[in-house]
Amino acid sequence: MSDGEFERVALVGLGLIGSSIAWAAKRAGLAGHIIGTARSEQTRQTSLRLGFVDSIANTPAEAARNADLVILCTPVGTYGGLAQEIQAALKPGAIISDVGSVKTAVVRDIGPFVADGVHFIPAHPVAGTEYSGPESGFAELFDNRWCILTPPPGADRAAVRQLSRFWERCGSNVDFMTPEHHDLVLAVVSHLPHLIAYNMVGTAADLEQVTQTEVIKYSASGFRDSTRIAASDPTMWRDIFLNNREAVLEMLGRFSENISALQRAIRWGDGEALFDAFSRTRAIRKKIIEAGQDTAEPDFGRTARKTPGKPAS
Amino acid sequence: MSDGEFERVALVGLGLIGSSIAWAAKRAGLAGHIIGTARSEQTRQTSLRLGFVDSIANTPAEAARNADLVILCTPVGTYGGLAQEIQAALKPGAIISDVGSVKTAVVRDIGPFVADGVHFIPAHPVAGTEYSGPESGFAELFDNRWCILTPPPGADRAAVRQLSRFWERCGSNVDFMTPEHHDLVLAVVSHLPHLIAYNMVGTAADLEQVTQTEVIKYSASGFRDSTRIAASDPTMWRDIFLNNREAVLEMLGRFSENISALQRAIRWGDGEALFDAFSRTRAIRKKIIEAGQDTAEPDFGRTARKTPGKPAS
Repeated sequence: MSDGEFERVALVGLGLIGSSIAWAAKRAGLAGHIIGTARSEQTRQTSLRLGFVDSIANTPAEAARNADLVILCTPVGTYGGLAQEIQAALKPGAIISDVGSVKTAVVRDIGPFVADGVHFIPAHPVAGTEYSGPESGFAELFDNRWCILTPPPGADRAAVRQLSRFWERCGSNVDFMTPEHHDLVLAVVSHLPHLIAYNMVGTAADLEQVTQTEVIKYSASGFRDSTRIAASDPTMWRDIFLNNREAVLEMLGRFSENISALQRAIRWGDGEALFDAFSRTRAIRKKIIEAGQDTAEPDFGRTARKTPGKPAS
Repeated sequence: MSDGEFERVALVGLGLIGSSIAWAAKRAGLAGHIIGTARSEQTRQTSLRLGFVDSIANTPAEAARNADLVILCTPVGTYGGLAQEIQAALKPGAIISDVGSVKTAVVRDIGPFVADGVHFIPAHPVAGTEYSGPESGFAELFDNRWCILTPPPGADRAAVRQLSRFWERCGSNVDFMTPEHHDLVLAVVSHLPHLIAYNMVGTAADLEQVTQTEVIKYSASGFRDSTRIAASDPTMWRDIFLNNREAVLEMLGRFSENISALQRAIRWGDGEALFDAFSRTRAIRKKIIEAGQDTAEPDFGRTARKTPGKPAS
């Protein structure tokens, strides 16, 4: 097999990420055979019907048997149990990996169940949408997105290279980190933003003086951006917060200190402090666009956007 | 003149909103003549060159003279001074309005300078993008967006109707509120989300252990949604927070109480509390899409999105 290709790939979990990996692997011809499994019968049947798996297994162990690459694509809270379940089925030389949004907890949970001769290489494709389920996947999800590998010290170099090439050929750019640093970075760029978004939508939902109808009517003025990420899968996010506690609490502490300073500036009418705080943020936006991680289109307008700078007539 | 049409419209301030009003008014044939003014010579020249104004005045008073409708389209902190400046130039029967994102402060600042026979009808088109300046405007900005009018008790009904029709023909849906209720609703749907977004980006920019390069690289995982609104105009937003202090502090208080509850749930590993909090928010997202205030496309994927559910080959 060439670089990044595997004879038999097993996907445990066939939601947004699992199904997208299958589509991306098919697009690039990375797998001789893709076998998938999912807890629900409906998901298994849908996956077969959509055709992104070549066959379906009824249990994780059955899927993992004889696979060259097994990827756990379920919420991180399930990894320990799954690793134990498939432990005996994994063949020597197989790679076991995952897609979890936290990494120290994954090492803690999966590590004890990895037999000698099996290569455990945690991975996190930093990509997603606000949708979930086997019908939400698509081949391009990982294109130009990062995939972070956190191989343990002394990991087999050939296996790391194989998995790294697999992700590159799925469209990703691959990066390497320690699990601890990964969790800190993700706490900032992903976990905190999601927690804040969930909290903002929840706060708005609880108001007595302002109706939900009003919140919805006027959401284009800023609120709707929060609701997009607050529509993400609750089980997945519960597991992320339970499994990245220290880093999230550290970031939340900093966030709260800073919000208190802004609150004080508003209360005391300190316009200069507000202006300074609001002026520091445009440069970061600009760099994100330059790095190809977002578009520069004026997205606030969304549906109303047609002909910038020109009358429509 | 028909419904919502004016012989002479004066726009004081030619940024995103001012220029978009001009384009929208031209699209619908709402103004016999549009005269604009802006503090900077460059903005005035750019506006003339782009052609969305018919003529340019060097001062607000000069623009307001003989106008049938004067709209202040500058940051709300400038309204008091501008109202005083144009007070003497306004002709009897003229309508003076604005586009400010707060309304009680606008009534407080402009009210004292409105002569008898002049109709003061505050307005807030709830629309925008993260861009600013005369080149960022476009005719469709207000299409299917709400414009909230807060006419004072006893306002001239014909004048209110004229302004209301003007906004409808600019593409807006028009709603009426008291200034106080407006400020509370906007604190929830707009001001708090912006404050939180500015704070999130500022918090990330200050970290020592995580580099800005890393924040930018991995921003697609949630962070970038915050940076979009955090790129909005700092002067405008400083003025909004200084002028909607009570409502923003009230909402911020609720937000902080709720975030403390989530923080506690994370610290104590209370997965049930987290799951419940994260499950309440999807319904609101769904309603926003149904109300036409956002698209249902899986926007997290953005540039990577092409063929949902199908391999690209």
